[in-house]
Amino acid sequence: MTKNSFDLKKYLAAKTHVVNAALDKYLEVKYPPLIYRAMRYSMFAGGKRLRPILVLEGARLCGGREQSVMPTACALEFIHTYSLIHDDLPAMDNDDYRRGKLTSHKKFGEDVAILAGDALLTEALGLVAKNAQEKGIGAERVINVLALLVRASGVEGMIGGQLVDTCEDSLVKKGKQATKKRTLAYIHTHKTLALIQASLSAGAMLAGASPAKIKALDRYGADIGLAFQIADDILDVVGDKKKLGKKGSDAQNKKLTYVSLYGLDGARRQAKGLVAAAKRELAVFGREKYILESLADFIIEREY
Amino acid sequence: MTKNSFDLKKYLAAKTHVVNAALDKYLEVKYPPLIYRAMRYSMFAGGKRLRPILVLEGARLCGGREQSVMPTACALEFIHTYSLIHDDLPAMDNDDYRRGKLTSHKKFGEDVAILAGDALLTEALGLVAKNAQEKGIGAERVINVLALLVRASGVEGMIGGQLVDTCEDSLVKKGKQATKKRTLAYIHTHKTLALIQASLSAGAMLAGASPAKIKALDRYGADIGLAFQIADDILDVVGDKKKLGKKGSDAQNKKLTYVSLYGLDGARRQAKGLVAAAKRELAVFGREKYILESLADFIIEREY
Repeated sequence: MTKNSFDLKKYLAAKTHVVNAALDKYLEVKYPPLIYRAMRYSMFAGGKRLRPILVLEGARLCGGREQSVMPTACALEFIHTYSLIHDDLPAMDNDDYRRGKLTSHKKFGEDVAILAGDALLTEALGLVAKNAQEKGIGAERVINVLALLVRASGVEGMIGGQLVDTCEDSLVKKGKQATKKRTLAYIHTHKTLALIQASLSAGAMLAGASPAKIKALDRYGADIGLAFQIADDILDVVGDKKKLGKKGSDAQNKKLTYVSLYGLDGARRQAKGLVAAAKRELAVFGREKYILESLADFIIEREY
Repeated sequence: MTKNSFDLKKYLAAKTHVVNAALDKYLEVKYPPLIYRAMRYSMFAGGKRLRPILVLEGARLCGGREQSVMPTACALEFIHTYSLIHDDLPAMDNDDYRRGKLTSHKKFGEDVAILAGDALLTEALGLVAKNAQEKGIGAERVINVLALLVRASGVEGMIGGQLVDTCEDSLVKKGKQATKKRTLAYIHTHKTLALIQASLSAGAMLAGASPAKIKALDRYGADIGLAFQIADDILDVVGDKKKLGKKGSDAQNKKLTYVSLYGLDGARRQAKGLVAAAKRELAVFGREKYILESLADFIIEREY
């Protein structure tokens, strides 16, 4: 298969299907049913399953088998979903809708939403353990992936980015342009990018990849992760609100964005540059790189 | 050392000191400082460090070294503290004070409190990884402990208990006496006991204990965990409010308690029976059992 004959949308749809089946299995309803219902509601409210698909692809590129890394692939979606539930809470972004559906706290109440988020985070890290206990992957590799995911989703990653985004808003507005740019970069690299970047590396590490391949995927992940975030900022300004399913735009909420800081053209230039850089990192994978190449292009071409 | 010459309070004070030093090290302030300050505020607001001390004792009894299980010991306190921060939130128990100090959301705001809880939970499971990466404990043992802690703190454990406690209150009030007793037992065994029980087992498992010893500690943990909870219910009625540092009692809040269901004498009888049963489980440890024997007695004798 070459890049030109490859249908990325078909591929993504097929992988989404496989991931959804695994998520369904790992979220079987037990007692108390209410917590499982709340976890499932947010998990199956849509979503591109980008992070799990990156785990699968990271493993495939490094000689691993999809099914053997599936628990960690699902763990990434659990962590992503928990972060959305908590971000939507009244004390945080106070969003009533996400992807066109009521947010967890509007549907189940704030108490259940907080617990459903806590539960998804806890169970996510339990899924990582399953990679060693049920899939026969070496325990040391699994421990290293656990540490990687904690760094990417904890205070040194996603939570750190979220904290700065939530609380240092006022600080940033008063700051100089250089401070604003630095803070925006910190928020994006930590809040969104860290988890996307960790997804590919986690798949590769579970497959026993060489340090050179892990490094290449880590850099590719950093580049497309940031491009993805910039594209989000651009879509927030020019995109079709209905397709995005969002209530208010970040621009309306006067949030710091790449477009507000660099202008629409400047933001587009940055995203394109990052995608080109990401693709250069893939040389080490030879012909097998076609999926990640297509994905990098897709990120700045997508409409929703 | 025999049980009679052993000073439990001195021992607990010494161990609390050791655990606090380790917690301090694992919570070193980095960027962004606000999240670390919030995590440290709740972590160092007092607390008996019962769970970490049980991890250390579980390891010691099975031939392990205290320092080599310290990351997991601290992980248990991280998980316990995160659960307190989230339980205190306005949407949950809505408590302004805990241990005589402002709760996290009153001190830092709800957004920071939610994130500080999320962070403590995430970093807790990262600490478990350190047991393999820094303390030389076999990765397979560490993976098994990770799975154990997820079961104890996730939907099959603490979060399940919290969910039923929070949301099925009204259901229980209308139920028959037998349903009430079953629900109360579910809440207690899951909300509080699961984590206490897992502490001893985690220490033993990291030390490579035999299945017989792990089973004995598991049963001992279940018995003293429930006795501890019943003692809490009793103290809530007869204890000195100032010593406990609580605002309102569960009795005033008309919560389902062992005292309300079984009466003061009935609750005391149950707690005593559980402590006796717990001590019988310790036979397999010979003379070394004196610390856990003293601890079991202490649970129904404590005043705060």
